[in-house]
Amino acid sequence: MDRKNQGPAEPVASNGILSRRLFLEGGLVAGAAGISASSAAAEPLVVQSWMKTPGAGFAGYGQPSRFEEKTVRLIPPPPNPATEGVGAARTPLHLLDGIITPSGLHFERSHSGIPDIDPDQHRLVIHGLVRRPLVFTVEALHRYPMESRIAFIECAGNSQALNAPQALPLGVAAIHGVFSCAEWTGVKLSTLLDEAGVDPSAQWLIAEGADAASMSRSIPLSKAMDDTLVCLYQNGERVRPSNGYPVRLLVPGFEGNLNVKWLRRLKLTTGPAMSKDETSKYTILLKDEKAWQFVFPIEVKSIVTRPAPGLPLKAPGFYEISGLAWSGNGSIREVDVSADGGKSWAPAALQSPILPKAPVRFRAPWQWNGGTAILQSRATDSTGMVQPTRAAFVAERGLRGVYHYNAIASWRIDEKGEVVNVYA
Amino acid sequence: MDRKNQGPAEPVASNGILSRRLFLEGGLVAGAAGISASSAAAEPLVVQSWMKTPGAGFAGYGQPSRFEEKTVRLIPPPPNPATEGVGAARTPLHLLDGIITPSGLHFERSHSGIPDIDPDQHRLVIHGLVRRPLVFTVEALHRYPMESRIAFIECAGNSQALNAPQALPLGVAAIHGVFSCAEWTGVKLSTLLDEAGVDPSAQWLIAEGADAASMSRSIPLSKAMDDTLVCLYQNGERVRPSNGYPVRLLVPGFEGNLNVKWLRRLKLTTGPAMSKDETSKYTILLKDEKAWQFVFPIEVKSIVTRPAPGLPLKAPGFYEISGLAWSGNGSIREVDVSADGGKSWAPAALQSPILPKAPVRFRAPWQWNGGTAILQSRATDSTGMVQPTRAAFVAERGLRGVYHYNAIASWRIDEKGEVVNVYA
Repeated sequence: MDRKNQGPAEPVASNGILSRRLFLEGGLVAGAAGISASSAAAEPLVVQSWMKTPGAGFAGYGQPSRFEEKTVRLIPPPPNPATEGVGAARTPLHLLDGIITPSGLHFERSHSGIPDIDPDQHRLVIHGLVRRPLVFTVEALHRYPMESRIAFIECAGNSQALNAPQALPLGVAAIHGVFSCAEWTGVKLSTLLDEAGVDPSAQWLIAEGADAASMSRSIPLSKAMDDTLVCLYQNGERVRPSNGYPVRLLVPGFEGNLNVKWLRRLKLTTGPAMSKDETSKYTILLKDEKAWQFVFPIEVKSIVTRPAPGLPLKAPGFYEISGLAWSGNGSIREVDVSADGGKSWAPAALQSPILPKAPVRFRAPWQWNGGTAILQSRATDSTGMVQPTRAAFVAERGLRGVYHYNAIASWRIDEKGEVVNVYA
Repeated sequence: MDRKNQGPAEPVASNGILSRRLFLEGGLVAGAAGISASSAAAEPLVVQSWMKTPGAGFAGYGQPSRFEEKTVRLIPPPPNPATEGVGAARTPLHLLDGIITPSGLHFERSHSGIPDIDPDQHRLVIHGLVRRPLVFTVEALHRYPMESRIAFIECAGNSQALNAPQALPLGVAAIHGVFSCAEWTGVKLSTLLDEAGVDPSAQWLIAEGADAASMSRSIPLSKAMDDTLVCLYQNGERVRPSNGYPVRLLVPGFEGNLNVKWLRRLKLTTGPAMSKDETSKYTILLKDEKAWQFVFPIEVKSIVTRPAPGLPLKAPGFYEISGLAWSGNGSIREVDVSADGGKSWAPAALQSPILPKAPVRFRAPWQWNGGTAILQSRATDSTGMVQPTRAAFVAERGLRGVYHYNAIASWRIDEKGEVVNVYA
């Protein structure tokens, strides 16, 4: 089959995957493709009530429409009812588009709730193996040169539901929702460390939060001096309380809990601190009872966010397969999509900007014929790493490692258009 | 003076402007530069109350810290108290950083308030010179291929306060605050127009909002077929009511009110409609009593957002001059900054990503010596257009044109560190 001579609306992989060229060249005859725009003659234009009287006045700080009240984070019940701030609130990625997560929906993972910090009282200390231990007020931090970058943060435990032996009846937020993206702005940590004067014997630092759990992680000095930011702003405004107000770390591409929230202390050391948050937790248990420790970068990964569970297809015809791809090791080079459970693949269109350690929105045109389909996406990053199949991932690691799950995920669509999580 | 041999912390323009190389090469000895980080020995670490007890639980939709309640839009009193939804709420750009405006603070300009639209009842009609008039539900629009882009929207009347004969004692929000940026996602208007089938005689279209003012603008068909989006998402989530929920236009780079909110109707025509919003308003009155009509792209522009009025400098020493630059005609090629009212200039660092028709955050290191300074920024875009001085702008247009003010703006800093709007 000579694909170069095909029109863009002809399938390029089985079960209805169309060419991404369709987005550039047009050729979507949507009426024929089954999208339900109706002829204007069939539906007389109604002058609605809101067109007849003046609308509401202005608000200092705006909110979403009251008709979008279902677009909220998913909050699973706490493991222990006495500790309601322990756990995570998950981003409903299937209800969003683009790459930015609005700050009200950015996932939050807390080990002892969200502290209510007075920024005038908060201090950041840099001490340990430095020439000159320093204390910074939040106001002082504002005096330093800043840098902005769009970056994802992913909890190391994201997608761990896919380690269950049988596929669970869960959706995007429950499975993949401890993943979000924001434009973060702050002071380069290297600027502050240079001022403190790092002792040549220092190789690591411990970052500690001002929450009641004193969440603490060890970070290699090389990463701290590279692209780590001491963030004051999230999506333009000051960092949200659930994301570390007034000061948090951004450690681009590294697993979520290194991006320490409510940042209080950075202590320079010769080795890692072996805190509870990097020994009893956040190590990857393998098949042979050994565990990987200090696995920092998030491996290449992608998910389809639409179609998805909870968003049934109402009729055969054209749909866009839309999703997110990311890698903590670089930028995304390619995303392929499949509608037949991985038997055939076609490249998706990648939305610019394609930034390192930031999510990329991918899109692929799809003609659903009304039959069974299994949607998958498979990302390749700039280092050449490719997302593994679930079978390959499980063969290497077994089913007990709760962290860094990055295998290809699958949504099954049945003849009624219902979408469910499956293993394929 | 051979600047190549200078260290990055030496001035490259008068009155303390340092080289942007400082951001790359380091060399900021902040202690010496006057930033008030204090020695840790001088300030014992306090264990605050919020570190001793578990914090708050999770929220479905998060909000800013209660300590940030002053970070709100500026809402000037309405011109007529009976029409409180007529006017604008302005973004406090001096309290933000990065390029994204959080949706709660995105500026809003309404001609008859914010309608409370039920998305299930809302319809978008395409009619006029088309083969097949169409009606779209919001749900149907979700079936089409989408596209995301980061883009600014600027009200054509932004910065008109600088046309006052004497400089007014106003700040960033009051002068420049009908300017914001979001990641917008929607369906390409060309996709919908292709489906309706544009008649060869059509050269324009009228876009009409579902607000009580029926705000309407004429848009050239060439722009509608180029990069115009029918937006459903703003910064990841559904468009906010004050920004056009459930459907708005994004007409990238064109003056604000062409980006019609609450989009209800697109009528294809042979010529512009001469609506009230493009005849009695939104035309540029010139010195000779003539007026320019249909001036669409926003000209190259930049503003310093920090330091700024309301953010006094508390002590001499190092500050970052930070601001935004943008052009509706392309991308930003260069921004220069001055601390002496335009006598000497040095290039600022431009933060990536640098995207067409999107704001760029610029930053320049500055050593304030405690004396008088006049801060300015001057942007050049990819077409080679350079921001004019206020004198040149006024010489061309006079002081009566309320729209498309893009001249260089000036903040004066006095010996006390107070910052005020001046003409220089």
